[in-house]
Amino acid sequence: MDAIRWQGDSLALLDQTKLPVEEVWEDYTDYRKVADAIRRLVVRGAPAIGIAAAYAVCLAAMELQCQDTAQFRAGMARAAKVLATSRPTAVNLFWALDRMTLALSAGGGGPEAIPALVREAEAIHREDISMNRKIGKYGAELVPEGARILTHCNAGAIATGGFGTALGVVRAAHAAGGVEMVYCDETRPLLQGARLTAWELMRDGIPATLITDSMAASLMAQGKIDIVFLGCDRMARNGDFANKIGTYGVAVLAAYHGIPFYTVLPSSTIDMSIPDGKHIVIEERDPAEVTHFAGVQTAPEGIRVCNPAFDVTPHKLLTGIVTEKGVIHPPFGERLLELFG
Amino acid sequence: MDAIRWQGDSLALLDQTKLPVEEVWEDYTDYRKVADAIRRLVVRGAPAIGIAAAYAVCLAAMELQCQDTAQFRAGMARAAKVLATSRPTAVNLFWALDRMTLALSAGGGGPEAIPALVREAEAIHREDISMNRKIGKYGAELVPEGARILTHCNAGAIATGGFGTALGVVRAAHAAGGVEMVYCDETRPLLQGARLTAWELMRDGIPATLITDSMAASLMAQGKIDIVFLGCDRMARNGDFANKIGTYGVAVLAAYHGIPFYTVLPSSTIDMSIPDGKHIVIEERDPAEVTHFAGVQTAPEGIRVCNPAFDVTPHKLLTGIVTEKGVIHPPFGERLLELFG
Repeated sequence: MDAIRWQGDSLALLDQTKLPVEEVWEDYTDYRKVADAIRRLVVRGAPAIGIAAAYAVCLAAMELQCQDTAQFRAGMARAAKVLATSRPTAVNLFWALDRMTLALSAGGGGPEAIPALVREAEAIHREDISMNRKIGKYGAELVPEGARILTHCNAGAIATGGFGTALGVVRAAHAAGGVEMVYCDETRPLLQGARLTAWELMRDGIPATLITDSMAASLMAQGKIDIVFLGCDRMARNGDFANKIGTYGVAVLAAYHGIPFYTVLPSSTIDMSIPDGKHIVIEERDPAEVTHFAGVQTAPEGIRVCNPAFDVTPHKLLTGIVTEKGVIHPPFGERLLELFG
Repeated sequence: MDAIRWQGDSLALLDQTKLPVEEVWEDYTDYRKVADAIRRLVVRGAPAIGIAAAYAVCLAAMELQCQDTAQFRAGMARAAKVLATSRPTAVNLFWALDRMTLALSAGGGGPEAIPALVREAEAIHREDISMNRKIGKYGAELVPEGARILTHCNAGAIATGGFGTALGVVRAAHAAGGVEMVYCDETRPLLQGARLTAWELMRDGIPATLITDSMAASLMAQGKIDIVFLGCDRMARNGDFANKIGTYGVAVLAAYHGIPFYTVLPSSTIDMSIPDGKHIVIEERDPAEVTHFAGVQTAPEGIRVCNPAFDVTPHKLLTGIVTEKGVIHPPFGERLLELFG
């Protein structure tokens, strides 16, 4: 299962805003439209955003290839800026753009670098899938026999290059026969849990139950959740991390009920440049995401709204961090520095 | 503001399923249709359900008044049964039906009791408003100057005879000048916070901000919530209580962040016949409430769903209980017995 396909001269994206009712792939040849697709959540999930942005850099280079070198370089810098401002929180976006900028320089800085750019974007994509597989293997070792797993939002195949981070762990654990049930928080406001995670799990034949975000606490109190796995949009070097709004609440509830709580991420999601979660920029999105659904008004006209897309969970609430280099336990700051410093 | 009006020979209900976009009142002369309106949440909120059921008993008596005494009594027993099976959790429903049954007996048991039945239903309605006013006065004393209040679901004027329980406290505190902001959990799946609470507060000019249920934890972590007030559908004699799904999670989060957490209820919501929350029947509702919104499918076809309408919060997570007889603090069991035993 995947949601991003490079087609040699265009990028195909599965429109995740239309799932699960319709599976529509759209072709992109204009990097600006890819930036817009990232903004509109056609493609979402920190690793997937990075991969899509890398391919968008290739599209920009192809569009600019007949320009002279100065114009090409100016155009590429503009493209990187447009892509960098599509969404602020997921660090994979900036990490991928940095890799592409280095590949451009190494390839000569002009249109002659296009093959190298495509190779780099494909490498980012391929490496992400490979990291997901390793993550799945390490994470699956944490899953008890007959586990009832809770997840939030979608950290699945379509949020990554393929396979998934948190859902990669679920897939690997299921393949090993260890999963009794995956409870999917629906994840308001945009219902990525209902629309995407439930859909991925059903397609793979993994037992899944959909709940509203407000039901997780009650399931925990009833002893129906054994372990929590969810994704990450940016991790600071002390282990604090931003993820979909609601993650922090799940973390507090898991701690209260003594349930192991893991975030699952490739190293491309770790931002060693910031000391802690206070330095993570949190995207505030359109109030209409909360006040309307599918064009239907669900709140009074003019009501004030908060709509942060993410919250920050302090590392002290984490049981561990599942990465492609293994599972990290406290002290997180020291261990992250050792492995990814 | 109100949502229930007795009109001498019919009952008018504000259709709460259509708020906030449309304000539609419907007339009811058939008690079966009132039972259906309770089931469909046209009228909802524990006190309001009790009041509507009491008036529905009057409608049943009027429908049966030309029958002979035996048929009248059998018909009234049937009506009480139909109304009692409309919803299982809110104890006010059973409490109101018990009061109406006693009034029927006291009034002679036959059609001659109709004026007494109407007087009893009107008394239940009037007493509820009066209890709400007292509750508001006691609760407002708990609200710090410039308070940022969190509430969940709707425990407002339209969930009661008028004025509201948790929102009665908010109204009284606002009138005293003490409220800076009320954060309204939207309250999935049926969005009573977005559709009803936000609407009530805006109409009364009380500063309100709508959030998804998953945002409350993050606001607490940021120090933006000073106190929590929410309603109750049934309280056991030890203080454990059922309320809208999500309440238990808010309770755990409030305790974790050291935020005072109060449930607000008239004595008609207390069920002294059960020792603790384990004895409260929790209504499981249609999965379509979670998988669809306004007719739009939001989850994959055939996905398993949990949809409990309520959860149970253990009394140990409560800071206090606001009632018409004052604010109760621990030990709740002893204090409830003293006041309501």
